[in-house]
Formats: sequence, structure tokens, C-alpha cells
Amino acid sequence: MLFFTQCFGAVLDLIHLRFQHYKAKRVFSAAGQLVCVVNPTHSLKYAPIRCATAQASTEQGILPPCHHHEVVHDPQLVPCTCPLFSCQWEGHLEVVVSHLRQTHRINILQGTEIVFLATDMHLPAPTDWIIMHSCLGHQFLLVLRKQEKYEGHPQFFATMMLIGTPTQADNFTYRLELNRNQRRLKWEATPRSILECVDSVISDGDCLVLNTSLAQLFSDNGSLAIGIAITTSKVHSSEAEM
Amino acid sequence: MLFFTQCFGAVLDLIHLRFQHYKAKRVFSAAGQLVCVVNPTHSLKYAPIRCATAQASTEQGILPPCHHHEVVHDPQLVPCTCPLFSCQWEGHLEVVVSHLRQTHRINILQGTEIVFLATDMHLPAPTDWIIMHSCLGHQFLLVLRKQEKYEGHPQFFATMMLIGTPTQADNFTYRLELNRNQRRLKWEATPRSILECVDSVISDGDCLVLNTSLAQLFSDNGSLAIGIAITTSKVHSSEAEM
Repeated sequence: MLFFTQCFGAVLDLIHLRFQHYKAKRVFSAAGQLVCVVNPTHSLKYAPIRCATAQASTEQGILPPCHHHEVVHDPQLVPCTCPLFSCQWEGHLEVVVSHLRQTHRINILQGTEIVFLATDMHLPAPTDWIIMHSCLGHQFLLVLRKQEKYEGHPQFFATMMLIGTPTQADNFTYRLELNRNQRRLKWEATPRSILECVDSVISDGDCLVLNTSLAQLFSDNGSLAIGIAITTSKVHSSEAEM
Repeated sequence: MLFFTQCFGAVLDLIHLRFQHYKAKRVFSAAGQLVCVVNPTHSLKYAPIRCATAQASTEQGILPPCHHHEVVHDPQLVPCTCPLFSCQWEGHLEVVVSHLRQTHRINILQGTEIVFLATDMHLPAPTDWIIMHSCLGHQFLLVLRKQEKYEGHPQFFATMMLIGTPTQADNFTYRLELNRNQRRLKWEATPRSILECVDSVISDGDCLVLNTSLAQLFSDNGSLAIGIAITTSKVHSSEAEM
């Protein structure tokens, strides 16, 4: 009986996922775009706690990870690259992808343009929606975070990080696009390197920021579809030419 | 002596304005775009005070102005269309433009694409930057407002209103674009009618919202350049087609 109940639950989940996939495709017109349903991860700890831990480890001779544009002296050692609040993992840049896949079960997707469909946007802060994105010969990490910068007023922050060095990151541009209810919001920027701390990018607000009311306008039945595109060419040519 | 000092001051102002104009043109590449330098207006009262006044006038038989998507029963009478906090003017839709020009000295510009250059972004909230924009046979009002929704954390809100009815407004799409420091932020939406209250559009957050750090990243020497474009065609065709 339990087996049948579980089977029925699994079938219902599949139908639900298929329906969400269809809805996300409806929003973004480009044919052949990959839609990935991303479930939330409830964060157990706030960023300052982790940064405080890092501070303590600095006193013991280990590099402080949570500083902006900080370059790690030993390029082989990468602390603080796992963006999950509660994880204090440290490791080499080359094994970050496998750590995120194996330890945190974060999916990795192929393709220059994908649709990131974050479910259950109503869940209380702090909550993360994370996915890895493989394209143009590199791996990127998309982090959507619900966080209360001002008590009682949760906001959504979305950013993309390159799993690589800051010099490598400078060669790319990422675009996040929301499109619904006759409103369109686009954010384009150079991805940050994962060697910089995702927490500081978000606390600086140097990313796509949505208040709750805008997030609701762009959501469909509690899910937010974000179109993601990565390019190598400099799209800010108008600025560069001048 | 005073005359010479004043003349010298005026020449310095002209040089400063010319320099700001050049800087704004540098950011936005399209040739022939009109750049308008917009100086701030410090608001003396907060929106709730005005809405409270409107509430009082409702009790005396005058229409309440500050409700969302509210349709004024007598289309000839337009209360609360003047977006300045401290103004309690009421009048016909046809004379809103002349009221804004004459009483508040708000400039009106021609052209489908203009650059709005808001100066002195550092001024304390509440502050408004307002301009009228005449194109496609209609007049639009662009409002940039610095306001503290959360005490001690000022934010910038930018929206475009049609000086016309909600039905007329539905035929247009406006785009606000920020482009600087290898970051680009675009907001596209249908303009609201000026018959709806600009205060409620901003308090709902259904507009382009910038926190202080993002506004600083997009600013150049205390001035924020916003590229504005208005179209009649439905740019949200991907949504409409589905």
C-alpha cells in the first residue's frame, strides 16, 4: 500500500514538474531553451556567522575568504567558495564543481541560454536557489537568495559567479531576465569569480535585486522563471568605444 | 562687483551643465539623443500626509485620488495628478501639462528617446526629479524619487506615467535603461495613467527600484543618467503570442 502511495506521489510530482516546465517555456519564447526546475534550500545560518568563523580561522593562519576582490595567495587553495551558508568546506578550485554536485546535490546544466525556474518563492528567508551552468568551456554558479536585509522585509538577490579566477571572469557577460505581466527586467554584468565571496556580492547589492512585490508580479503560482544567457563578447561595447 | 561675481557663477554653471551633458552622451551611444539635465526638488511632505488630506476631501464629497487603478467618475475632474508631495492642486486632465510647466517649472522634452540626467543624487530623501516627455502625440511624466521605505535606507524609484487615461496608457511601453561600470539594468513596462496616484505606484514598488549601492555604481560624479524610450508597439510579443 505504501509502495502504491509513493508511486502515486512520484507520478504527481512528475506531472507538476512537467506543468512548471511548460509554464516556463511559455514565458520565454526562444525555442530549444532548457528549463530547469530549482527547488529551494533553507539556509540554517546567516552569512555573518560564517564570516566570523572565517575570521577566527584567519587568526590561526588560514586565509580570510569573505573580502571583496580578495586574491587568494595560494591559488591551489580555495576557501569559502561553497555559497551555502552552513557549509565551511575548503578545497581546490578544480574540485569545487564536484563538491557542489556531490555534497550539495546541485544540478549542472549545459547550454548558453537556460531558464531557471525557482519554486516555492513564498518560503521564509534565508533561502537559496542554486544551480550550476556549464557553457563556453566554463562552469558558472547561479545563486538566487531570499534574505532580510531590513528586518521584516525579505528581498531576492540573484547573481552569477564563474567557477574560475577573476581574470577568467572578466571575459564573460551574463544576463538575467524576468518577463511577465507586461513587465520586463534585465540585469547584465560581468560575473564575479567564485574566489570572491557570494555573501559580500549580495550584501553590497551589486546584483539583481527584487523586492517582494516585484517578485510576486514576475512569479507564476509561486515560481519565478529567470532567463539566463552568457556571452563572451563585450556587450558593453557602447561604453568601451567612447 | 556683485554683477561680475554673478556673471562668473553663471558661466561656471554653464560649463558644468555642458560637461554633464557630454558625460551623459558618452554613456548612451545612440547619436542624436537628447540629454536633459534634471535638478532635484526637495519634497516638504511625505505621501501619507497628502493622501490623508485627500481622505479628508473625500468626506467633503471630492473623489479619493490615491487608490490603485481607481477610475475617476467625472472624467473632467482630475485630482491628485500633480506628483509633487506638497501640491494639492486639482484640475482637468487637459490642463495638467500647463499646471506642471507653469506652477512647478517642469521642463517638457520632445523625442521618442531621451536621456534623463538626474543631478545631486546624494541629497537626502524625500527628493524628486521630474520631467515631462512629449512623443507619439502624447505627454508622459517621468518621476525619479528618493524615498526611505525602511528608515535609514533610502531607495530610488523611477516610473513613467501617461498624462492621459488608463486605456490610452495601455497602448504604450516605456523603457528605462541604466548603463555604466560594465553593468546594465533595463526596466520595461506599460506606463500607468496619471489618473492613478504616482505615490501608490512607488509604494507598491511596481517600478524600477534601485538601492543606494546600485545607484552609486550607475552614477557618475553624483549624477544618474537614465535612457528613456517609448514605443507604441507591443514589445511583450513573446508573451502575447502564447
